[in-house]
Parts: sequence; C-alpha cells; structure tokens
Amino acid sequence: MEHVPGSFGTSASFALRFGQTIFSAASLIFMCFDFDFYDFTTFCYLAMVMAIVTPWSILLALTDTYSVLVKLLPQELRVLSIVFAGDFVLSFLSLGGACAVASATELLASADGKICDGSLCIQYQVSAALAFLCWFLLLASALFNFWSLPSLYY
Amino acid sequence: MEHVPGSFGTSASFALRFGQTIFSAASLIFMCFDFDFYDFTTFCYLAMVMAIVTPWSILLALTDTYSVLVKLLPQELRVLSIVFAGDFVLSFLSLGGACAVASATELLASADGKICDGSLCIQYQVSAALAFLCWFLLLASALFNFWSLPSLYY
Repeated sequence: MEHVPGSFGTSASFALRFGQTIFSAASLIFMCFDFDFYDFTTFCYLAMVMAIVTPWSILLALTDTYSVLVKLLPQELRVLSIVFAGDFVLSFLSLGGACAVASATELLASADGKICDGSLCIQYQVSAALAFLCWFLLLASALFNFWSLPSLYY
Repeated sequence: MEHVPGSFGTSASFALRFGQTIFSAASLIFMCFDFDFYDFTTFCYLAMVMAIVTPWSILLALTDTYSVLVKLLPQELRVLSIVFAGDFVLSFLSLGGACAVASATELLASADGKICDGSLCIQYQVSAALAFLCWFLLLASALFNFWSLPSLYY
C-alpha cells in the first residue's frame, strides 16, 4: 500500500518534523532567556518537554530525509507504532505544558507587576504559543501515522 | 466487520461514557463549590469544558445503551467521524483545562495563603485531577473510534 502522505518516511512528514524542530527550539530559547523561570515548576516542565521534543523531531527529520532522498524506508508495524506512540505522548505533554504556562503567566501578570513585568510576561506567553504550535504539528504526525497502522495490522 | 470493542455502540464504549460522565460532573461540582472561581479565567475555562463534556457523554451513553440493549446500531462513516472528532476535541480541551488549573492552583498556593487557603486549593486540585481522568477516558473513546475509521473509509 502506498505511504499515507504525512506518515513516516514521506516528504510531508519531513515538513512536519521541520516545523516541530523550529517551534520547539524557539519555545525553549524564549523560555530560557530569563533565568527566573527556574522558580516555577510549570516553566521547568515546559522547558523539559521542549528539550525532549527538539531532538526527537530532529532525529525523525533526518530519517525522513534519508527515506526521501536516498532509499524509501519500508513502513513496518513496530517502527510505525513506536513513532506514533512517541508523537502522541509528546503531543500531550506539549499541550499540557503550553496550557499550564499560559495559565500561570496570565495569573502572574494579573497578580502584580513585580514578579512578571511587561517583557518577561510576553516572553513566557510567546514560549507557550510556540509550544502550542509544536503540539499541533506533533498531533498531525501522530494522526497520519495512526491512520496507516490498521492497514499494517490486518 | 465486527465492531471494535470500545467503539461507538458497544458495551465497552458505554463503560467509557459512564466514567466520563461521572468524572466530568464531579470535576464541575468540585469547581463550583466555591464562587470565587469566577475570578480566574483558567477556572472558568475548565468549568465550561466540563459543562460541555457532561451532556456529550450522557448523550453517547444513552446511544450506546440503546445499541446494546435494543438494536445494534450500524457504524456509518459520517456518524463515527463526528463522534471521533467530538471526543478528540473535547479530550484536548479537557487536558488543557486540567493542566492550566493544576498550574494556576500550584502558583496560588505557593504565592501566599490569602487567595487560596488549604481546603480551597485542595478542592481545585481535585477538580483538575478529575478533569485529567476524564481526558484519559475521552481519549480512549476517540482512539477506539479512530481505529474503526479506516476500515469504513476504504
């Protein structure tokens, strides 16, 4: 059966991985600009998740490049299941982190100006927004791979 | 093709719907015990999501009951897609709400005792935990239905 566009080893998948790498790395950078983020568990959590998503997406982007440019990799059930499971778990972790940081930042901004003054708050919110976009691309990858699974299963 | 256990119209699906109804209603009740929750956007957001999940789960639980006890409903592509899409979107909204409330409550508790004293904080955290469980069951329903989609599609 022909590869589902967007699933493992296709050029569409490479585009998704490229986007994920950019967004997760940018989210991490925005978060780490300021060293105060260590004070809050929520911010540490998002930084940790993005630090896992970035290498994961780079690794799969390289695999997709190899599959597109050198030799089309066959879609095995085991490989596809691992890639799907990884994408799925990371997508939920990213969504959870993005929502937690957005909520905490909104609370800090409304509480009082001392903890989170203007630019700092915006920085955290941009980091949450980038993590949200990263979630969306991870979810797309997960769904494309999940759509291919039943045909390999039966 | 025989219904995938857990997908629309099966007894396993009814069990999932029953659990979703209990958790979302309980999360809503714990959240609304205290009228202060209106002060924070995050808490209003979770209450709103749970207020949508509860009737959604009740409606589908009734449909599953009819399908199991009276007449087995056929799984059509359109119906299954709508149920899957609803479950999927609501599962993400629930996860986002649960993480946002958990993060905000943790922040309020660590900020100072005035806003969120002992029992109030616990109440919000219990509400977030119940929403988290509700997310898990919604996700399970979504995945079981998604697994049935390709066979109806091709």
